[in-house]
Amino acid sequence: MHDRSPLDVIKPEIRQASAYTLEHLAADVKLDQNENPHEIPDFLKKKVAERFDQFEWGRYPEFVPTRILGALERFTGWPREGILAGNGSNELILATLVATVGAGRVVTIPQPTFTLYKLLAASMGGDVHEVPLGEDLTFPVDALVDAARGSDVVIICSPNNPTGCVIDPEDLAVIASAARGLVIVDEAYHEFSGQTIAPLLERFDNLIVLRTFSKAMSMAGLRFGYMLGNPALVAQVNKVKLPYNVNVFTLLAAEVLLEESTAIEASIRALIEQREHLREELGRLSGVEVFPSRANFLLFRTPHNAKVLFEELYQAGVLVRNVSHYPMLDRCLRVTVGTPDQNDKFMGALGRSLENLHESAVGRKAPKD
Amino acid sequence: MHDRSPLDVIKPEIRQASAYTLEHLAADVKLDQNENPHEIPDFLKKKVAERFDQFEWGRYPEFVPTRILGALERFTGWPREGILAGNGSNELILATLVATVGAGRVVTIPQPTFTLYKLLAASMGGDVHEVPLGEDLTFPVDALVDAARGSDVVIICSPNNPTGCVIDPEDLAVIASAARGLVIVDEAYHEFSGQTIAPLLERFDNLIVLRTFSKAMSMAGLRFGYMLGNPALVAQVNKVKLPYNVNVFTLLAAEVLLEESTAIEASIRALIEQREHLREELGRLSGVEVFPSRANFLLFRTPHNAKVLFEELYQAGVLVRNVSHYPMLDRCLRVTVGTPDQNDKFMGALGRSLENLHESAVGRKAPKD
Repeated sequence: MHDRSPLDVIKPEIRQASAYTLEHLAADVKLDQNENPHEIPDFLKKKVAERFDQFEWGRYPEFVPTRILGALERFTGWPREGILAGNGSNELILATLVATVGAGRVVTIPQPTFTLYKLLAASMGGDVHEVPLGEDLTFPVDALVDAARGSDVVIICSPNNPTGCVIDPEDLAVIASAARGLVIVDEAYHEFSGQTIAPLLERFDNLIVLRTFSKAMSMAGLRFGYMLGNPALVAQVNKVKLPYNVNVFTLLAAEVLLEESTAIEASIRALIEQREHLREELGRLSGVEVFPSRANFLLFRTPHNAKVLFEELYQAGVLVRNVSHYPMLDRCLRVTVGTPDQNDKFMGALGRSLENLHESAVGRKAPKD
Repeated sequence: MHDRSPLDVIKPEIRQASAYTLEHLAADVKLDQNENPHEIPDFLKKKVAERFDQFEWGRYPEFVPTRILGALERFTGWPREGILAGNGSNELILATLVATVGAGRVVTIPQPTFTLYKLLAASMGGDVHEVPLGEDLTFPVDALVDAARGSDVVIICSPNNPTGCVIDPEDLAVIASAARGLVIVDEAYHEFSGQTIAPLLERFDNLIVLRTFSKAMSMAGLRFGYMLGNPALVAQVNKVKLPYNVNVFTLLAAEVLLEESTAIEASIRALIEQREHLREELGRLSGVEVFPSRANFLLFRTPHNAKVLFEELYQAGVLVRNVSHYPMLDRCLRVTVGTPDQNDKFMGALGRSLENLHESAVGRKAPKD
């Protein structure tokens, strides 16, 4: 036996990192992962199954997935040479960081945001520079412009997870213009925001847009995402994207969804409507602060310990996300916008939980005699 | 617009790297990707479809894929805490290298071997140390033991792609024992070799075994692979493995295949038999040198330019792999073992091609008068 621990070979930045984890909890009302509660229609699933029947499972996907790149070109209006398909957009974040980040490279990330950016950038040996959101949890544009001047990579999630704020396209143009390096905009939730910064791709060759089929497109279980960027840049990232990274079934499903994207537009509109409704309802609850959101979730703060409130809700059958450990998000929870019925159940459970917690808080404070 | 090129932010090691590419060529007889030509039986596909019907596409896979880890534990006899599931085994190679390789880290790779190891190790900023195979294209054990002493990571593909040689478990034990860091053994083709080094996992906590469902298991189109290693090490690699990396359809397919693995054993036996038959036939051709192989492919060298012979075969409807640009493999092609009919077609096309090339070579040399 060798006399060193095999863990010695693990890079210090990995050993020190905490794993990204999520406890798997079953719940009647699952509002913790920003999934679209409306399944894609059966006629689309049938179409996918029929096409899949013509494929041999034992054969690799095409090396360059021509059909999906063509479908994405038609859908986005961006040339296929500037598009990469991924096993979820996370894979494309990783590939971009592998291509650009090493020791001495600076990666700027607003905080709070999706935790994977920091974990991956640090894993690559990058120097992660965190820029706090404003107190109202909106993007601090001036600070981001300053940071971009000295950064190799800036990553902005818009709408931002878990706050729901968006970057204004004009502000993003100023950031991209000032940037020394790349600006990656993760538009995982853009369908719920009514905006995209994709038109800026024409003007900024240092801009990368990431999209996913896991949220609005109702395909989280199948894993699909894509990247848009200038073709020369995309060709470099493509070198470290793994070959055959998207399986045949998912390629077909994504293709069918792009052909029939109108079929899910109604569910997106419904979720936007429900979001505004839910936001009003949350805003009416005494002691609850709800933040404006352009995504399919809402962030809210209560007077109570978030872990305790999370547990109360879970006991009542409603699963939300406790995000109170994120910077600036003390006492905050994030709730995915669900169907009207799910949202009602959530509101009912929240009202009762807040009442219980309020009573027990008052009880504790009452003079003992 | 900013005044730098966005390509400046791409790391020099990526800019200098050539992309891993494969031209997609249609062919009647496709023997270029070491796929299993026998599709998995329809009753298994039906079972997968039935289970998949119970899943919502819009919901993420479980964060920890409990069922597949349990199935792999039963299948391999290795505890699930020491198993990671991947979107193909390539993803697990990448994750392991992200966790262990950066500037100053030494990665030893025998050559010739699967090109992705070097591409990824170099992308991570590692110092790639290449150890040539022996002249008979077998593993140079002493040189590997020496190299392992000074390496952070050693990657051995056994059976090796594209040569077909295997590492003897006793030799591997000596290498793992001498190694300063990790030893990764990629067993993508182990089912065709009748051996595995997995039993050594008990003795060596610096050993990682990679397996894939893309070859013997007939699931290349669905992307699945797994890693076995000591749980503490696997937990570190897991930190940089992307969440939700395997889609629900593939998880179910892999699970069904593991439950019914006897259903594909006959196809594996048939391919081993066919390999030996094909090797004899190739050996009988004048001027052809065929190398012993324990995988589902054969490497052979002819007197002719490999690119020209590749084209001749392709014109005859047979697609093989031109590997003549690999170190030491001048004038070599690699052919996947197919069905008896495919192998016959290949042999027929090869015989005719060699004859044509011989005649045109003789013709060129003939005195012109």
